[in-house]
Amino acid sequence: MAIERIGLVGGGVIGAGWAARFLINSYDVAVFDPDPHIARKLEEVTANARRAHAKLMSGIALPEGKLSVAASLEEAVREADFVQESLPEREDLKQEMLARIDKATRPDVVIASSTSGLLPTRLQSAMATPDRLVVGHPFNPVYLLPLVEICGGDKTSDAAKARAAALYQAIGMRPLHIRKEVDGFIADRLLEALWREALWLVNDGIATTEEIDDAIRFGAGLRWSFMGTFLIYRLAGGEAGMRHFLAQFGPALKLPWTKLVAPELTEGLVDRVAAQSDDQAKGMSIRDLERLRDDCLVAVLGGLRSQDYGAGAVVKAHERHLMDRLAQEPREGGEEEAGEGGLLTLWRGRVLPEWIDYNGHMTESRYLQCFAEASDALLRRIGVDGAYVAKGCSYYTVETHIMHRAEARLDTPIEVETQILDGSGKRLHVFHALKRSADGHLLASAEQMLIHVDRKGSVEPQEPLRGAVDRIAAAHAKLPRPTAVGRHVGAGRG
Amino acid sequence: MAIERIGLVGGGVIGAGWAARFLINSYDVAVFDPDPHIARKLEEVTANARRAHAKLMSGIALPEGKLSVAASLEEAVREADFVQESLPEREDLKQEMLARIDKATRPDVVIASSTSGLLPTRLQSAMATPDRLVVGHPFNPVYLLPLVEICGGDKTSDAAKARAAALYQAIGMRPLHIRKEVDGFIADRLLEALWREALWLVNDGIATTEEIDDAIRFGAGLRWSFMGTFLIYRLAGGEAGMRHFLAQFGPALKLPWTKLVAPELTEGLVDRVAAQSDDQAKGMSIRDLERLRDDCLVAVLGGLRSQDYGAGAVVKAHERHLMDRLAQEPREGGEEEAGEGGLLTLWRGRVLPEWIDYNGHMTESRYLQCFAEASDALLRRIGVDGAYVAKGCSYYTVETHIMHRAEARLDTPIEVETQILDGSGKRLHVFHALKRSADGHLLASAEQMLIHVDRKGSVEPQEPLRGAVDRIAAAHAKLPRPTAVGRHVGAGRG
Repeated sequence: MAIERIGLVGGGVIGAGWAARFLINSYDVAVFDPDPHIARKLEEVTANARRAHAKLMSGIALPEGKLSVAASLEEAVREADFVQESLPEREDLKQEMLARIDKATRPDVVIASSTSGLLPTRLQSAMATPDRLVVGHPFNPVYLLPLVEICGGDKTSDAAKARAAALYQAIGMRPLHIRKEVDGFIADRLLEALWREALWLVNDGIATTEEIDDAIRFGAGLRWSFMGTFLIYRLAGGEAGMRHFLAQFGPALKLPWTKLVAPELTEGLVDRVAAQSDDQAKGMSIRDLERLRDDCLVAVLGGLRSQDYGAGAVVKAHERHLMDRLAQEPREGGEEEAGEGGLLTLWRGRVLPEWIDYNGHMTESRYLQCFAEASDALLRRIGVDGAYVAKGCSYYTVETHIMHRAEARLDTPIEVETQILDGSGKRLHVFHALKRSADGHLLASAEQMLIHVDRKGSVEPQEPLRGAVDRIAAAHAKLPRPTAVGRHVGAGRG
Repeated sequence: MAIERIGLVGGGVIGAGWAARFLINSYDVAVFDPDPHIARKLEEVTANARRAHAKLMSGIALPEGKLSVAASLEEAVREADFVQESLPEREDLKQEMLARIDKATRPDVVIASSTSGLLPTRLQSAMATPDRLVVGHPFNPVYLLPLVEICGGDKTSDAAKARAAALYQAIGMRPLHIRKEVDGFIADRLLEALWREALWLVNDGIATTEEIDDAIRFGAGLRWSFMGTFLIYRLAGGEAGMRHFLAQFGPALKLPWTKLVAPELTEGLVDRVAAQSDDQAKGMSIRDLERLRDDCLVAVLGGLRSQDYGAGAVVKAHERHLMDRLAQEPREGGEEEAGEGGLLTLWRGRVLPEWIDYNGHMTESRYLQCFAEASDALLRRIGVDGAYVAKGCSYYTVETHIMHRAEARLDTPIEVETQILDGSGKRLHVFHALKRSADGHLLASAEQMLIHVDRKGSVEPQEPLRGAVDRIAAAHAKLPRPTAVGRHVGAGRG
């Protein structure tokens, strides 16, 4: 049966991140955590996630799922179609709670653990139906990073792993199957190696926490956002490739370039790391740092999406998936329906940080981007889909007249109202009004002429497009014609 | 004295990367490398670097420096104002060559070594003037990544370190001073720890090279592109911060989550890594992979620049630096001069990959971006600089009319010709023509009305702007008025 309700046990940084990711992807979520502040924390994390998601997937948002805070573990999981446990990394605690979850859930429900590195064979040892226990290890912030490591124990069924992987993919994640059960799986073994070395550097007074962070983020960290160590080192080998790289840098493996045991976390070392970390944070609160981190992640993911590579390819695929799901959603209200004769509101978004110019306002080309995306939404509405474009058919913009009326500031929710002025022949003459969503204040307008083309040149569209355009145009002909239509530059403000 | 000529010894992946970075930043470069293909390799790497730089710093390019290939080490460094050595990581070889460089250079010249982790105290041991030897350790690709580790040996002078750091900053890099000389410095100790663990995972058959890379690039690698391990873990501690994180994850330091020695690079392990790396590359050549890597880096750096954070802040500062240097460059030819009465060509660029829409052409909002950037260049020309904008004064666009004439494809060099139609009163009425640079073919035009404002509202500009606008407008009044001026949408193609 389809998964609709998620039961979450544990609502810390990871559990709350799961809640946000599931809610935004339209799943209902019930959370149990004994923390008395759990409701506030879930709300704060979900607000951050919503903000990041709106920036990353501009204009595409499913109706959010329902969040409930459960009074007990059993209440959180009883009605769930899938359970995700995110308790502290203590094997005994997880074993006990997983056994309780096992008792309280329907037998077809997959139970996933967020553990960073404890072995699923041991975690499932106290469960009556251990075959459905699977590790699904995410990374912070769970609502933005795509990676989730999937690992089964000795008794885990393949079906449970597949079902977990399918659900994670449905919420935009990138499952990585761990074929051989091992402490720390793959990612945390790599992270832990780097982390232990970093602690040594602080312990030995070689570098501060800030210097170590700088050594990562101004160098190798930039590469790691899209290619891993092996592909990067293949490139470092130059034209001779990986074998040459190993021959060239193999000898360095014999050099004392890392400490080979973990340092003792003495009180002195804890003090030093904590104090340096405070210096580094320069008084920013965790919430401020989280928003900074999320903005950077959105910018990096957005950049990689433009390359359709790495995590950017995952985001792009999820966007398509959300668009498909959105198309299946029943439309709310009637105001978007041309049948009602009203204007179409086909584009909604927010003023993003990268849209702001040196004057502190939304830069002019981004206005045209909003209008162009509204035109694209209109084209999709009348039937210009991927298959139609693949045949070489589409509408192309030949002319645009923009009038700026008011400035738009960072993060302002905005929307575009669209009217078809003329859809006869090859023409699609439209008028867009960009407004502040909150109060409908007009920010700018655009009059555009689009022409229908096929592979050979401009040509009248055939059915069913013909009829779709005519139906909206006929309804819109009854609406008043905007005064800004038909003006040329310098003719006055209309 | 000012540094103008750079001597490079070694032209492999790192040396060629240095050459490209210096050339693009207008320094002359002489390279010595015994490789018979050195000239071709330098040319290929510089072409890649030029391509990446054009995308990252769109529209801002200094005249490139002159590249020469030297017949000997001595020839490469004799006239140099700064020397960078990038030979293989063999201490004996570097010691010998650094002594030869020492003999062949002027005594005031700083000599930097690109070593990843050899100790400068040992490298300088055979030099007659060891005080000027400094480690300047960059990261691949040198022409894009900002990080450079600076480390002196026992005999290195502070002046040499400061001089190297200043030069690296002038070419857009981010120096990181290593305060305590240690094998592997900071970055390579961290990289080596992760790398050794990764080799164990392949060696033990836990994961393939591709799975390990995926474990990085879909997860922690995304974070590492702007925040290092310590700041990220501070966030993982939630509201309780770093001390809580150490308490929570400290016990994991006792778990066997990494191997604690480096694996032996047996023939079997080399074969396995090389074969898996071949699979992972899916037949892509090193050059193709390099371009993919560079495109992703440009996208990530561009994303972070929009946040003015981490490496993005370094890029943004370097852009400003380049603009300042560009303003001091003598102008080439007279065709850009309004005094000659001709049209102004103030914007040149290329159609970038992220500008292409689902129809395979440059998307319409990017046309307006070109026009808006041309308007910005015009404003700079008449005296609207950072100080003027900071006073709250500027010209704002109130109206734009765009006509699309032909499609623009990926990578096409393009330029904007600008005419002032009317500069009287508060108005700046301009006409832009976007053309293919190669043959002057018209792609699109834009008529724009800008209005001068101060903090209070629209107002006529004062001297010296007043005079600068009038002079250009008077010269342009003698030019023919474009037929597309004064048209409204749907009036015909003009």
